[in-house]
Amino acid sequence: MSGTAMAQAAPTTVTEVFNHAITASAISAAWEMGAFDALRVSERLDADEFAAREGLDTRSTHELFRALAAADIVSRDGAQIRRGPNFAEADRCKSLFHWMTRGCGELFSTLPALVREKNRVGSFYRRDAAAISVACREINAEWWDPVFWPVVSGLDFTSVADLGCGSGERLIRLARTGPEVMALGIDFAAGAIEVATAAVAEAGLSDRISLVQGDATALEPRPEFAGVDLLTCFMMGHDFWPRAEAVASLRRIREVFPDLKHFLLADATRTTSYPDTDMPVFSMAFELAHAVMGDYLPTLEEWRPVFEEAGWRCEGEHPISVPADSVMFHLVPN
Amino acid sequence: MSGTAMAQAAPTTVTEVFNHAITASAISAAWEMGAFDALRVSERLDADEFAAREGLDTRSTHELFRALAAADIVSRDGAQIRRGPNFAEADRCKSLFHWMTRGCGELFSTLPALVREKNRVGSFYRRDAAAISVACREINAEWWDPVFWPVVSGLDFTSVADLGCGSGERLIRLARTGPEVMALGIDFAAGAIEVATAAVAEAGLSDRISLVQGDATALEPRPEFAGVDLLTCFMMGHDFWPRAEAVASLRRIREVFPDLKHFLLADATRTTSYPDTDMPVFSMAFELAHAVMGDYLPTLEEWRPVFEEAGWRCEGEHPISVPADSVMFHLVPN
Repeated sequence: MSGTAMAQAAPTTVTEVFNHAITASAISAAWEMGAFDALRVSERLDADEFAAREGLDTRSTHELFRALAAADIVSRDGAQIRRGPNFAEADRCKSLFHWMTRGCGELFSTLPALVREKNRVGSFYRRDAAAISVACREINAEWWDPVFWPVVSGLDFTSVADLGCGSGERLIRLARTGPEVMALGIDFAAGAIEVATAAVAEAGLSDRISLVQGDATALEPRPEFAGVDLLTCFMMGHDFWPRAEAVASLRRIREVFPDLKHFLLADATRTTSYPDTDMPVFSMAFELAHAVMGDYLPTLEEWRPVFEEAGWRCEGEHPISVPADSVMFHLVPN
Repeated sequence: MSGTAMAQAAPTTVTEVFNHAITASAISAAWEMGAFDALRVSERLDADEFAAREGLDTRSTHELFRALAAADIVSRDGAQIRRGPNFAEADRCKSLFHWMTRGCGELFSTLPALVREKNRVGSFYRRDAAAISVACREINAEWWDPVFWPVVSGLDFTSVADLGCGSGERLIRLARTGPEVMALGIDFAAGAIEVATAAVAEAGLSDRISLVQGDATALEPRPEFAGVDLLTCFMMGHDFWPRAEAVASLRRIREVFPDLKHFLLADATRTTSYPDTDMPVFSMAFELAHAVMGDYLPTLEEWRPVFEEAGWRCEGEHPISVPADSVMFHLVPN
């Protein structure tokens, strides 16, 4: 080999692909087992002590740390575990792994059955909703909140509604931005309304936050919608599609919220610009999962002209880095 | 960067670990969907045509090929798919991926629950037995047969027994080595005996192959065992352990088969010599899975002295490369 060759990325080997899949499961497991927390606060941990303290099988625990060590997330010296060069990045991305291996584990392991047309009827796939919710809460905190809150803090609003409010966490935080702020959560899932109602009560905000069940893609006018001046909608914009329906839904939203001043619509979009061998973290899994589930993900280019057509002006596009090409559109009524 | 730096392996990134996990599932899926077969015989395939012909969802199929392209297993030009630099190796290793993602998918995605001591009672884990059996048949054909058959062909035998005969495939092939060869299959699982009985009947060998249900780790003498001069036992040697029980089991085998001349015992052993960041394909997953399932895997060094103690002489150790440090011991009664 020539001494003048520049150092460059070695080609991926099939062995790496194989072992990395195990490391991916180990990252998700390590989060749930508390290993990331333990190693973040302490220079090193003893795998045997850790297993005993957490009530874990010792041999399995050693094997899990080996799988982390295989990708330089930790290093091992006997039972002594230390942070490796990839620790900080794996710690930051652990929720993405959790989404993939724990949340979508069954979806990805049974792909051949799920992609067969004849099987794609009814509820043909299963995911672990609890794991996905845990993962999404952390994904939100790590990558979406730092884009959302600076924009929100620059807006004047006294009444906010959140479309697809889920567990109600965002609503509660929005209500806390000011003692006069009223908030309304809308979700299609009865389970979400139930969880959010309990969370709101626990936060002592039942007097300022109300919750209604409703389909964001087919909203009917309601008296509660009057006065809402800020609307937020996170991680579900693609549910408005296909295109003609997205135009209709966004137009309807403009109509049923007569006093709206701002609409912050944030979602992942389908990537188009990355080479196959240089895909950013998360996006490939996210797009494969949505294709398998039969959900259409519009691209950024597909989104843009829709707003104008539906009676909105896009005042700003705030990029979100994970999944790649996610964006928060700041819309105002036209 | 210095122009004199030698090209060297780039450090693994967390993004690679993430995306490779998706590629791993895609390799397993591509096998089951027939994509490896299609690309092996043809220079290229059209993803849309392939999806239509195989009855697959088109968008999911494109995403699956992208996941293969991410690790250079194929390359894509629009819908045109060609073999990539890693195609041959992925094709050779696809059964290992199938074992991991389809066979042990649930086990790896639910690791945190499975490693908790309080959950490790009863049948605490689930694997896809059918997928594991398909994977193991191919693993056997690719890595184990090339070691097994040259040794068998050098042995004189007229009556062979296979401990842990499973589906009966090895038995049938052993019986076909000569018109005079009698064969006996022993398996603990009633289901295996059923499958093997059907396979033997279909092969027209019911007059020369018989099957009995029995526990290899606690064999009782049987009239059928007299005259057996070759015993084979594949992929279950670790079930004899812990050590004291392995000695007892191997001693009992020597006693209940009074006429044995050769005992070919092949199994994976626990690796001890590979650095964490340079684990060979399969072994790390195999060892993690066995730790989680609570199965002890002896090392090569632990095995060796056991034979002498149990009344056997090890005439040869034939290495098998996958899983790494697998070996076929050629034992003869002492």
